[in-house]
Amino acid sequence: MWKTIEWSENDTVVMIDQTKLPREEVYVSCENYLDVAHAIKVMQIRGAPAIGVAAAMGVAIGALAIDETDVSAFKKKLSEVCEHLAGTRPTAVNLFWGIEKMKQVLKKNEGEPVDVLKRLLKDKAIEICHEDVKINEAMGTNGASFIPDGANILTHCNAGALATAGFGTALGVIRAAFNEGKKIHVYADETRPFLQGARLTAWELMKDNIPVTLITDNMAGYLMQQGKIDLVVVGSDRITSTGFVANKIGTYSVAVLAKKHGIPFYVAAPISTVDFDIADGSEVPIEEREIREVTHVFGEAIAPEGVKVFNPAFDVTPPELVSAIITEKGVAQAPFKEALAKQRAE
Amino acid sequence: MWKTIEWSENDTVVMIDQTKLPREEVYVSCENYLDVAHAIKVMQIRGAPAIGVAAAMGVAIGALAIDETDVSAFKKKLSEVCEHLAGTRPTAVNLFWGIEKMKQVLKKNEGEPVDVLKRLLKDKAIEICHEDVKINEAMGTNGASFIPDGANILTHCNAGALATAGFGTALGVIRAAFNEGKKIHVYADETRPFLQGARLTAWELMKDNIPVTLITDNMAGYLMQQGKIDLVVVGSDRITSTGFVANKIGTYSVAVLAKKHGIPFYVAAPISTVDFDIADGSEVPIEEREIREVTHVFGEAIAPEGVKVFNPAFDVTPPELVSAIITEKGVAQAPFKEALAKQRAE
Repeated sequence: MWKTIEWSENDTVVMIDQTKLPREEVYVSCENYLDVAHAIKVMQIRGAPAIGVAAAMGVAIGALAIDETDVSAFKKKLSEVCEHLAGTRPTAVNLFWGIEKMKQVLKKNEGEPVDVLKRLLKDKAIEICHEDVKINEAMGTNGASFIPDGANILTHCNAGALATAGFGTALGVIRAAFNEGKKIHVYADETRPFLQGARLTAWELMKDNIPVTLITDNMAGYLMQQGKIDLVVVGSDRITSTGFVANKIGTYSVAVLAKKHGIPFYVAAPISTVDFDIADGSEVPIEEREIREVTHVFGEAIAPEGVKVFNPAFDVTPPELVSAIITEKGVAQAPFKEALAKQRAE
Repeated sequence: MWKTIEWSENDTVVMIDQTKLPREEVYVSCENYLDVAHAIKVMQIRGAPAIGVAAAMGVAIGALAIDETDVSAFKKKLSEVCEHLAGTRPTAVNLFWGIEKMKQVLKKNEGEPVDVLKRLLKDKAIEICHEDVKINEAMGTNGASFIPDGANILTHCNAGALATAGFGTALGVIRAAFNEGKKIHVYADETRPFLQGARLTAWELMKDNIPVTLITDNMAGYLMQQGKIDLVVVGSDRITSTGFVANKIGTYSVAVLAKKHGIPFYVAAPISTVDFDIADGSEVPIEEREIREVTHVFGEAIAPEGVKVFNPAFDVTPPELVSAIITEKGVAQAPFKEALAKQRAE
């Protein structure tokens, strides 16, 4: 069985290389925090919760390598590690959440010597990884009731086991419904430019024998018009306190189309994806990635040399287009501000 | 200067190979009607008006090769040629229009011997090709007034010189506005799966120094949300008598998004694209193409082997999402039935 990310016995972080899937099932072994940061940046690992786990492991692996016995010198060096990891990708809040969780280990263990702190940091990173799977399973249970038997479900990008430590968020909801014996069928948007749908969602659903049909992103509207989609479920990289949902570019278009056709649009994400510090969608920083992601596919040029390209990696869907936000704590419906705050407090 | 399609002096039909652009600028020389049919089917030539021209030239080249002196035997063989060409692609009505124009040559010249008919058919095919450019120029003049100075224009697929005998329909309108000295900027949807936007629209606009930025199809909604699109202009493969617009898959999604954001959505197409025999959009046959178009890009696999794929090549946009239909005869606005019938009668 493949694993998205794992802390290896020899204190390295091993990840399946998501830039190579589905053509090659190969693993990246990160020996130090720079390797982890690189893996996040080039999207060998991606997906908000998986990035959170990777960041935590990056902090831990960075901590282990710090050659200081003085706690304050250790902390100073570790904060450089944290800063470097935080600079990899701006949109997914889970990255900062993962790093923050690790910083809290230091705060909660004032007075402990460096070797104890190192062990605690490593334990915490491994715990975050295991915890993520449990969170996703709970999310799946909470969300499965929204999936009717016989449903045709559209998903965008990959919010699956590959986007998390395991089981998935949006695909976790789908998996839970499938595991309950519901006959379902998934339409996977291929999700240009990085092709997470074609390369990752199709791959992991096929591995689990969950029926899936691949479409290009621009076919979703036609399918909805033809009555072939019963509901949409996607993940998220950051949700504001009022329910604006940042997710992979194209999610907003899917949400507009779903609304137009009266199709429910669900978001599945851990409560750690909610950024309670911001309210409006415009406050979410939108990462722009290199143009080669658009102009080349597996090294092959698909556009004229020198063409100008715009490559925003995310967009923001306003709360009025969101039917419900499914977390491990429950199901939030509008008004999201109150519902999400309540979940956080639980 | 490159040419989309041309009748060569040695009675072959020469086309730029649109499956190879923008990586290679190579030409296909069709020696017989089977070559022409193949070129249409595999999309070495594509775009509704260009298909119409190619079909007419296919009939002509087929006629020249018929070794009969008896008119009725000649006509019988020619109808087989027409039937074969008509079976290449089902959606674009211009294919059938082009063939019909050639059949009318026979009807109008009853009593003429085979060698005269052959000459008349060849002349007609060449005339249709030249006429198409003039039609597009007239369309450009009619449509340019809809393009404000400084406009950011979104287009989907390629409705350019490459989709016609020259100048283009949607890109003809853009070219005309540019030639009038308007400062404009085009966002080109890459248009999966065949990538007409990335490969063809970007290429031909760059050749003409018209500013263009390439985006993936799923970015259009985000750009509209950000106020970066002033209008949309696309071509069409078939327009019903009441103004339903069949066009490249994804056009419907763009139209829904444009409506949601209060952005005008224009269609530019010759009056020959209007199929007055059908009224409702559901009557337009939607071609489904082979799954390899989705699973492979320039021979590279981008999806798991054996994945199920749905690959409809077109969708239909209902008239309520269309701001105006621009033809060589004028500009039709709702109610389209009356406006289009009036243009046809002129």
